[in-house]
Amino acid sequence: MKIIIVGASGTMGKYLAEAFKREHEIITAATKGCDVDVDITSTTSIENMYRKTGPFDALISTAGPTYVGPWKNLTDKTFRAGVEGKMMGQINLVLIGQHYINPKGSFTLITGALSHDPQKNFANASAANCAVEGFVRAAAIELENGIRINAVSPTVIENSPQYFPYFPGDIPVTMQQLEYGFRKAVFGANTGQVIKPY
Amino acid sequence: MKIIIVGASGTMGKYLAEAFKREHEIITAATKGCDVDVDITSTTSIENMYRKTGPFDALISTAGPTYVGPWKNLTDKTFRAGVEGKMMGQINLVLIGQHYINPKGSFTLITGALSHDPQKNFANASAANCAVEGFVRAAAIELENGIRINAVSPTVIENSPQYFPYFPGDIPVTMQQLEYGFRKAVFGANTGQVIKPY
Ligand SMILES: NC(=O)c1ccc[n+]([C@@H]2O[C@H](COP(=O)([O-])OP(=O)(O)OC[C@H]3O[C@@H](n4cnc5c(N)ncnc54)[C@H](OP(=O)(O)O)[C@@H]3O)[C@@H](O)[C@H]2O)c1
Ligand SMILES: NC(=O)c1ccc[n+]([C@@H]2O[C@H](COP(=O)([O-])OP(=O)(O)OC[C@H]3O[C@@H](n4cnc5c(N)ncnc54)[C@H](OP(=O)(O)O)[C@@H]3O)[C@@H](O)[C@H]2O)c1
Repeated sequence: MKIIIVGASGTMGKYLAEAFKREHEIITAATKGCDVDVDITSTTSIENMYRKTGPFDALISTAGPTYVGPWKNLTDKTFRAGVEGKMMGQINLVLIGQHYINPKGSFTLITGALSHDPQKNFANASAANCAVEGFVRAAAIELENGIRINAVSPTVIENSPQYFPYFPGDIPVTMQQLEYGFRKAVFGANTGQVIKPY
Repeated sequence: MKIIIVGASGTMGKYLAEAFKREHEIITAATKGCDVDVDITSTTSIENMYRKTGPFDALISTAGPTYVGPWKNLTDKTFRAGVEGKMMGQINLVLIGQHYINPKGSFTLITGALSHDPQKNFANASAANCAVEGFVRAAAIELENGIRINAVSPTVIENSPQYFPYFPGDIPVTMQQLEYGFRKAVFGANTGQVIKPY
């Protein structure tokens, strides 16, 4: 399978690229330092990415910037980080990518437990995650040619100890659990699902 | 109680204003034809509305424009209808309104069953609804002074027969059920809930 991983220079993306490259052709993407440069906040940049990669079988996104910080600083302006990044960035990866993906291909987007289990400082991510999850369910009944779409929604992951203090009592998802979540989405047959790999 | 209803000229808003005005001081708002003009896609307009209304006890929003139409016309551009309208419009009603609302006041936003139960033509509403629901859960743990926030999520409502063909098999929510959903949100004690009035 030819798999594009957007966010491949990040904590999750690097791990997944390493795990999947043993068996698949992996094209890594991020704003810099990967096989292809892409800024998911720009539809032109997304279009250019797909033009460069050509047809593909699966897109994995682990790119989802959001505003993290005190509630008192959450305004229309700061909220846009997650709207343009994690939400519309990932939605546009699908709306544009559907014209490049092979039949029976799949999109797998990243969300997170903040959708249903909020934490202080992360309201922007809660909204963006949920938007992506709602979109995933809706897109699943619209996409044609057997194209599937799912989201993977972990709690805080073991390789991100810097976030542990913000998620008191959350049992970190191991990198292997995370990998299994993405495996289920990419190599399974489900669509419209939010996969909780724990 | 002093209650602002944004979207008060619409199908839901008109009914709720009528139902609640027997017992409460109601200020109606919409882009035109109500006590106060407001365009929720503009933060300036929202600010102006609250300056005019002054302190209040509850805000109900039934204003939630989205793009409705064929999937093939869903692009970054058309998607913005729901992002700026139902999503950021309602989120900004809260982010700005929190500085005007009385202690122990409440915000009640509108979402809809498309969050969890998608239908063709409505992917934009699914995403916007879910974003609002995620925001509601997160805002509930951030808002201060006992301020509460909830969402009401009906299926198609009985007074909107024009939508029935798009929601095959969905049992329409009666206007009274809808009213009870908002009653629970405004006059109950819960916060961070998505109330399904059926
Ligand atoms: N880490 C956790 O514990 C955890 C748990 C649950 C959910 N999540 C969610 O999972 C996602 C990934 O987490 P992570 O820890 O792997 O994040 P990360 O280490 O910060 O990596 C993010 C990746 O996304 C890329 N990226 C950021 N903005 C981009 C843009 N505009 N266009 C293209 N690529 C962009 C980054 O590349 P560049 O540096 O080149 O921009 C990087 O490759 C986030 O949405 C996060 O909210 C994380
Ligand atoms: N009807 C249903 O069966 C149903 C079921 C579930 C969920 N919902 C959701 O519930 C919400 C309300 O439904 P409805 O049937 O009552 O809609 P509606 O009859 O179209 O009424 C919408 C109201 O919102 C106002 N509005 C629209 N855009 C606005 C803006 N930018 N700023 C301020 N006000 C604005 C409209 O006033 P102006 O004309 O002045 O703009 C009107 O008062 C929608 O979000 C819809 O998706 C509806």
